[in-house]
Amino acid sequence: MELEFLGTGAGVPARGRNVTSIALKMLDERNEVWLFDCGEGTQQQILQTTIKPRKINKIFITHLHGDHIYGLPGFLASRSNQGGDTPLDIYGPVGIKEYVQTSLNITGTHLSYRLRFHEITKPGVVFTDKKIKVSQLPLDHRIDCYGYRVEEAALPGELLVAKLQQEQVPSGPIYGKLKAGQTITLADGRVLDGHDYLGPAKPGRVVTIIGDTRKTANISLLAADADVLVHESTFGQHESKLAHQYYHSTSTQAAQVAVKSHCQRLILTHISARYLGKGAHQLQTEARQIFPATRVANDFDVFSVPFPTQSV
Amino acid sequence: MELEFLGTGAGVPARGRNVTSIALKMLDERNEVWLFDCGEGTQQQILQTTIKPRKINKIFITHLHGDHIYGLPGFLASRSNQGGDTPLDIYGPVGIKEYVQTSLNITGTHLSYRLRFHEITKPGVVFTDKKIKVSQLPLDHRIDCYGYRVEEAALPGELLVAKLQQEQVPSGPIYGKLKAGQTITLADGRVLDGHDYLGPAKPGRVVTIIGDTRKTANISLLAADADVLVHESTFGQHESKLAHQYYHSTSTQAAQVAVKSHCQRLILTHISARYLGKGAHQLQTEARQIFPATRVANDFDVFSVPFPTQSV
Repeated sequence: MELEFLGTGAGVPARGRNVTSIALKMLDERNEVWLFDCGEGTQQQILQTTIKPRKINKIFITHLHGDHIYGLPGFLASRSNQGGDTPLDIYGPVGIKEYVQTSLNITGTHLSYRLRFHEITKPGVVFTDKKIKVSQLPLDHRIDCYGYRVEEAALPGELLVAKLQQEQVPSGPIYGKLKAGQTITLADGRVLDGHDYLGPAKPGRVVTIIGDTRKTANISLLAADADVLVHESTFGQHESKLAHQYYHSTSTQAAQVAVKSHCQRLILTHISARYLGKGAHQLQTEARQIFPATRVANDFDVFSVPFPTQSV
Repeated sequence: MELEFLGTGAGVPARGRNVTSIALKMLDERNEVWLFDCGEGTQQQILQTTIKPRKINKIFITHLHGDHIYGLPGFLASRSNQGGDTPLDIYGPVGIKEYVQTSLNITGTHLSYRLRFHEITKPGVVFTDKKIKVSQLPLDHRIDCYGYRVEEAALPGELLVAKLQQEQVPSGPIYGKLKAGQTITLADGRVLDGHDYLGPAKPGRVVTIIGDTRKTANISLLAADADVLVHESTFGQHESKLAHQYYHSTSTQAAQVAVKSHCQRLILTHISARYLGKGAHQLQTEARQIFPATRVANDFDVFSVPFPTQSV
């Protein structure tokens, strides 16, 4: 599980920072890539990476400002053009369906795959299966905006092979069944419950991605015990008034949430064009005074998401 | 007058070629830049040039396929964000207004300048003033598509200073009036008509920009005696069947039009991703066998538009 930042700027593209898009790569886990937001030029950014558009099968939109969605119609069309034929799900605020459908209709674009829209009408879980769950809560921005929390299910414990060997259980397909937690009967009549031969379950990872927002209580709920918190930092520590006025956050506010929510790592993104080069580094310095495990994301940065038991 | 190619690819962006947009720079002539098409990522391409978004005051759209318009909402929003406050005119097929307005409305974008739409409903002149005229004719594409012909008015002749000096006409504000074609009376009583002191008028330039199209008769009308013809070349000379099937043109067809219409120069663009590197050069070689003054455009190429009297 890795986060790849395709665009880390705020509002308008700048030379070094495109507008917002974040890829959550889960190639080992499920051979899928999910996008969070899709600003203009996201498909061009993807061309600079190893990401295959057809593997992107879910797109989560935080809010409907142009710098977060104007790349969506072009990405969808190119995914079709490049042979994508599996369904794609789009989650986001009410209006995302009208925007995408109008764009595709007016341009006469017919996709080679099915597009499914999931517009958010109340807080809660937007997607879940046996291995992963995504939930959202509203934030505090000028328009409806959401933060997403991605939670992996706990991974089953390792099969205790040494214990089985000690008890002289012959290896073979039986091991697979025991690992799956099944109860089996051996040729010698012994009955074994798989659960007795599994190590402790491994907690799943939590990644929280916060859209554009002022400081607000829901962020802490979304970020609770997150292994990685991705938080906007449109402003620096001394600009909390401006941040409030424009419905954004400061580096310091992001760090305070990371502390309060017992996060493992904090990644700052949505960096204003006023913080070029060393300026962006300053945001990181400010946040680290409160939460040391902070990084400012740059375009094309890749961060692996460690398991909770790993050191940060 | 210069043409700067911001995107020269077809359909989907490729590493070296973004989707279509062409800037007609008229900084000396009218301190304006006009865009022809605005595919996704055009504003990012502009960041790599010296073009100032606020100087772009007219955008001509050839047709509503996504690779020609998906950059429009983002460009318009950024032009506003960057202090553009003068009106902007958009010319194009019926539907362009709905596309732009839906995109701006759903994203809650309020522009700091006035947007004026001019949807094309019949062939003819779309814009004219004392110095320039733009007309369009329909082409033959899968959806409504237009070619644009930009014609400069003839420039008044130079003031014949040597002749004035020979006749001992004292220099001063009088020269300006004579240059403007006025009749003036000198202190010694002589009456002079400005027209007698002007050299021959200088013919204006003609630039023709052809959208996506099959071979069709209107192209020749639009391109007649053009100083520069910009023509799509999605396919190579041996793929005329494919070109016909997909409503596009070959390198050879573009060159044949340039010959037939007595153009001075031909620039090929809208190059398919299948012609990378040397492949694109091959399109140029094919066209040059028929029309030697041909160039294949690459992203960020700048071509000056010579006056008709200059050598090619």
